[in-house]
Amino acid sequence: MSQLLNELATIAGPGGLLTGDEVSSRASGIWRSDGIQAQAIVRPRDTEQVSRILKLCNKAGQSVVTHGGLTGLVEGAISAPDDIALSLERMNQIEDVNVVDRTMTVQAGVVLQAIQERADDHGLMYPLDIGGRGSCTIGGNIATNAGGNRVIRYGMTRDMVLGVEAVLADGTVVSSMNRMIKNNAGYDVKQVFIGSEGSLGVVTRAVLRLRERPRSQATVLAALDGFDKVGQLLKTMDAKLGGALSAYEVLWNEFYRLVTTPPAKQKPPLSQDYPYYALIETMGGDPEGDHARMESALAEAYEEGLVADAAVATSEAQRQEMWAIRDDVEQTTHFDPNFIFDVSMRLSKMEGYVEEVNRRLTATFGDYTNFTFGHIGDGNIHFAISAGDSEESAREGVERAVYEPLHAIGGSVSAEHGVGLEKKPYLHLSRTSEEVALMRTLKRALDPKGILNPGKIFELAPG
Amino acid sequence: MSQLLNELATIAGPGGLLTGDEVSSRASGIWRSDGIQAQAIVRPRDTEQVSRILKLCNKAGQSVVTHGGLTGLVEGAISAPDDIALSLERMNQIEDVNVVDRTMTVQAGVVLQAIQERADDHGLMYPLDIGGRGSCTIGGNIATNAGGNRVIRYGMTRDMVLGVEAVLADGTVVSSMNRMIKNNAGYDVKQVFIGSEGSLGVVTRAVLRLRERPRSQATVLAALDGFDKVGQLLKTMDAKLGGALSAYEVLWNEFYRLVTTPPAKQKPPLSQDYPYYALIETMGGDPEGDHARMESALAEAYEEGLVADAAVATSEAQRQEMWAIRDDVEQTTHFDPNFIFDVSMRLSKMEGYVEEVNRRLTATFGDYTNFTFGHIGDGNIHFAISAGDSEESAREGVERAVYEPLHAIGGSVSAEHGVGLEKKPYLHLSRTSEEVALMRTLKRALDPKGILNPGKIFELAPG
Repeated sequence: MSQLLNELATIAGPGGLLTGDEVSSRASGIWRSDGIQAQAIVRPRDTEQVSRILKLCNKAGQSVVTHGGLTGLVEGAISAPDDIALSLERMNQIEDVNVVDRTMTVQAGVVLQAIQERADDHGLMYPLDIGGRGSCTIGGNIATNAGGNRVIRYGMTRDMVLGVEAVLADGTVVSSMNRMIKNNAGYDVKQVFIGSEGSLGVVTRAVLRLRERPRSQATVLAALDGFDKVGQLLKTMDAKLGGALSAYEVLWNEFYRLVTTPPAKQKPPLSQDYPYYALIETMGGDPEGDHARMESALAEAYEEGLVADAAVATSEAQRQEMWAIRDDVEQTTHFDPNFIFDVSMRLSKMEGYVEEVNRRLTATFGDYTNFTFGHIGDGNIHFAISAGDSEESAREGVERAVYEPLHAIGGSVSAEHGVGLEKKPYLHLSRTSEEVALMRTLKRALDPKGILNPGKIFELAPG
Repeated sequence: MSQLLNELATIAGPGGLLTGDEVSSRASGIWRSDGIQAQAIVRPRDTEQVSRILKLCNKAGQSVVTHGGLTGLVEGAISAPDDIALSLERMNQIEDVNVVDRTMTVQAGVVLQAIQERADDHGLMYPLDIGGRGSCTIGGNIATNAGGNRVIRYGMTRDMVLGVEAVLADGTVVSSMNRMIKNNAGYDVKQVFIGSEGSLGVVTRAVLRLRERPRSQATVLAALDGFDKVGQLLKTMDAKLGGALSAYEVLWNEFYRLVTTPPAKQKPPLSQDYPYYALIETMGGDPEGDHARMESALAEAYEEGLVADAAVATSEAQRQEMWAIRDDVEQTTHFDPNFIFDVSMRLSKMEGYVEEVNRRLTATFGDYTNFTFGHIGDGNIHFAISAGDSEESAREGVERAVYEPLHAIGGSVSAEHGVGLEKKPYLHLSRTSEEVALMRTLKRALDPKGILNPGKIFELAPG
């Protein structure tokens, strides 16, 4: 072992350094088949060890890629053979839950689901919920500013994190473990680390804001006969439900058909002939009243001509069935190759944008399938597109069809997944050169040697 | 006029540069009597002019203090005789309102109330509301991350701003005018400018997130017989009201007595003998249902023994009367000298903290008055303290009594007002040296010559 690895092993203690097969036998992502490439995986037990590790690596100019649960979808935590992977898997302690302050203090390696469950034990809720909940870590959630199904009500991870402790590239520990909703004492330095994909510092601990656990969820699946009504219905439901609206998901016809037709298990609660379906949910504090309110809101929407048909979930089982329809993205994997996207744009531009993407797919590929759905209350569309003969030959054509039209409408190539390596070639479509230059300025100021997650998001030297 | 002033006059065009009496005859703050000190006030009409002004000043090493509505309370926009004051008062255009996207695009000099009214014209709401609404500008709100009465529901300014355009010290225009709720395409660079008190860039335009206008407000004043119940009642109301809770203000006994006893105009809706009073409000979408829900939540709180007595507002006039009680801070000005504070801490530490402040005031001054109230749902206390013989002789003793105990409990010397010059000596009580060092790193990276609002928040060179 090199001198550096020896020193890292000493810092991390017994079992703290993995090399050789212990590295390559681990998958590089939980949905990937290739093994991790890295000189070693170092697994610190506390912030002080992280600080010593980074200090050492910084001195040596050694690149470091931080690993959380490896559930990311944009190659944001992929390491190269020369990198050191810094895994926070042994920093998995929930340090404190305070039911009066409604905060939880955690180490960065705690798995999201453990946080959700611990909050629930105290009659509270940590609102972040994403598909990777059983594997993703809060450190990764913070590094990627994770979103999910409830953003319309509770915001993204940025809005759920009160304080952060992070270690800078040079080993400096910046403990900004604020516990208050309001704190304007100088710059809010934690914002720098949230959503920076591990490139400006390594988040080691955090203070999370908890909410009261909802006492009821009221859920409706509505059919809409035009896209203009998608926006109008959102406004009506939002206005009528007065703060309780927690999900507004929309399924385009093709997606709805796919996930309510065998081999999919779910049956269609509404006819398959409408162009759009909205899955609408509230989280409330008054089980009886909340369902009545949802029905009253729905009645108002009928009167305004916004809803063509609707099904109300009258039991938890029915509620689960409706979500199973929304969540059955797996059906799209029957189509090969299969490209999944995560983009966002203003609601007023969405219909035209989706049409434009389909026009471009037709022009490029002739035949294709595009299953469209997403968190439309947040302007966030997911596409599952199949086109071309192979992943390799079709990727660029599909990506360009999806990403290029975003530029003209001020849309984003990444609503919630981040940039990593995968979206780096397209970042310029969503950010001006001055914005990227400012990102570089921040990177150089905080990580002058460029050791943290190098090459992700943007190149350090302007192209 | 100097060469620099001549060039500034050329850039800003007719009426764009004020000097001499035109400067000194303007108050340095809307609640201050001293005049503005500055070489000149330059008043650009657009972002391009701001860019040219800063480029010129940066080249000359000329300090620039940006002026919004001058409603700040911490000497954050005070300029010195050598400074150039950059006033955005002529950049006061509302550029666009989109009712589908629920966004408003504004220039930084637009007054908050104009934004509120324009949103209202479209059946929408911009939720920020603070006392200075008729004079403060959105640029100042962004620079100070303004809070106010509805933070518990809608967050602070940081949570209401989707995009920002800012000019860096060297004149670079960073246009980050995002219009989406979700956008993880690289670092969220706008976060750098929000709450940095004009020291990292000059915000020139912004995209604001609008909400549906509430259809009803239900308001209750509750009397509580112990501080433990302040926290418990907050939890019960929050859980029961399911997202509709928009204000949870608490008045300590001395404040309540003061503002419900002549010469104050308001009569006490509840006996003056309780230690705490909570003003609770919801914003909802269902006028009848919302009032019933508030009464049901109150009934639950009674059952749990959390509320000793309560008055429900049954008309808009009664609602206004309850808020007039909360807002009648002017009564504290009958006591001289009068020191107003804005601090925050965890709810679990609040009762002990207030006791400690009073202990210290007794120890230092013997006699004093301390009227305590605030946005307790956010952990934000305001004190109006009168002690000592004169403002000059008492200031340091009062400030130390209030600020010093915050250090041990992780509280903030500034919940919402910012730091400016006034709180700069106390910043170290709420931020670690590593946090302040990181603030300096950001400042040096974005404004290497230190021309923007120099000397505010912290000294550029570590002390």
